[in-house]
Amino acid sequence: MPNFRFTLEYDGANFAGWQSQAGSQRSVQDVFETAIEQVTGTRLRVAASSRTDAGVHALGQVASAAIETQLAPVVLQRALNHHLPADVVVLAVEQAPEDFHARFSATGKLYRYRVWNAPTRSPMNAARTHWVPRRLDVPAMARAAEAFLGPHDFAALQAAGSEVESTVRTLKRLDVEREPSGEIAFSVEGDGFLRHMVRNLVGTLLEVGAGQRAVESIAELLACGDRSRAGPTAPARGLTLVRVFY
Amino acid sequence: MPNFRFTLEYDGANFAGWQSQAGSQRSVQDVFETAIEQVTGTRLRVAASSRTDAGVHALGQVASAAIETQLAPVVLQRALNHHLPADVVVLAVEQAPEDFHARFSATGKLYRYRVWNAPTRSPMNAARTHWVPRRLDVPAMARAAEAFLGPHDFAALQAAGSEVESTVRTLKRLDVEREPSGEIAFSVEGDGFLRHMVRNLVGTLLEVGAGQRAVESIAELLACGDRSRAGPTAPARGLTLVRVFY
Repeated sequence: MPNFRFTLEYDGANFAGWQSQAGSQRSVQDVFETAIEQVTGTRLRVAASSRTDAGVHALGQVASAAIETQLAPVVLQRALNHHLPADVVVLAVEQAPEDFHARFSATGKLYRYRVWNAPTRSPMNAARTHWVPRRLDVPAMARAAEAFLGPHDFAALQAAGSEVESTVRTLKRLDVEREPSGEIAFSVEGDGFLRHMVRNLVGTLLEVGAGQRAVESIAELLACGDRSRAGPTAPARGLTLVRVFY
Repeated sequence: MPNFRFTLEYDGANFAGWQSQAGSQRSVQDVFETAIEQVTGTRLRVAASSRTDAGVHALGQVASAAIETQLAPVVLQRALNHHLPADVVVLAVEQAPEDFHARFSATGKLYRYRVWNAPTRSPMNAARTHWVPRRLDVPAMARAAEAFLGPHDFAALQAAGSEVESTVRTLKRLDVEREPSGEIAFSVEGDGFLRHMVRNLVGTLLEVGAGQRAVESIAELLACGDRSRAGPTAPARGLTLVRVFY
């Protein structure tokens, strides 16, 4: 049975996240599996690189599934897009090696978090950015960000109540840049992420940018491993899963 | 009575345009006049530089009104934004000379039209762009665009059934550029615009980009003045009023 790799884009605003939920909440997974069923006649489970949270967007989510079909990848893509709603699209379908798994084969991910940093909110950017009216100190956030780079125990940055075997992750990149529009973009690349890790990391850096937390405090925060000492979880609407590496 | 100049941003998706409509249709003008009434206690008519159509966005619409108020401009701005819905915001309030009128004092306007030119639609960009799957020839559109520059009778590019004294307008700029994302941006600046003129102009250039209309045909189209020979009106969602000049 051929194994397929799918690259998906979605606007997370009207989804309760990637993962199929009990009850009537709308998930990207359900919508995608329904489209596959409509095209192939088979209901199956699709694996994704990451369970994006409710409200989080994706420009390059990757999913995989072995599907009994004679359709060529490009025909399968077109048929799926015909059935998918306006807020999800399949950007690419490729045939993948038998052992390819969207989650377990992933070696890294790139997320982008967008902050609208201007005295007034922006209706045109409201759906994709978190609005912070107070002028943020970008160089201070960039300096603080350096302390997150490399391998660290990110226990202090994971959602309270999470249970994972190891909370050690490696960040390869954490750029903080002010764009000409006034928007601030955080680009975060790592080998893996704990639940809410990017949003907690951004929430913590925003405190640095607002002068409420010292640049030097990050190392100590990581060392203590205490979630209650990190910043608040930044809102989901600013976060996009940009790319998954294999 | 002090005269004020307001700069407004709005997401046009859920508006029947700027202008107040008979019946229950939602207009930016009504929403803005209601906010002024809530802040000052007075219902008045506000003038705008341009009646943007249903679905058209604005990053820099300008409105003016003389208002009996003691409020400083920045306080007035804050109070209005407190009352405005999420899809409209006042970016700036300035006290203006007594004879300033948002429409009659305007000397020019800059519009931007965005096309998503990729084989698959983009959920993250769907609200702000017009999707054209077929790869467009940007250099051909840029060459054709040159024929629109300068003073011309734009009768062929105005909405059918419009009645205005003169259909002569002067375009100062018409840039067509492919951005790194794959988006194509049309930047159109002129001293004034007829109804649907930018969207008809873009619809005509898109035919050139698709190889359905000759680059050289624009001069002839302008000369004949016949709306039925121009391209179709490009959808409103791709259009944004970026800036008004005074």
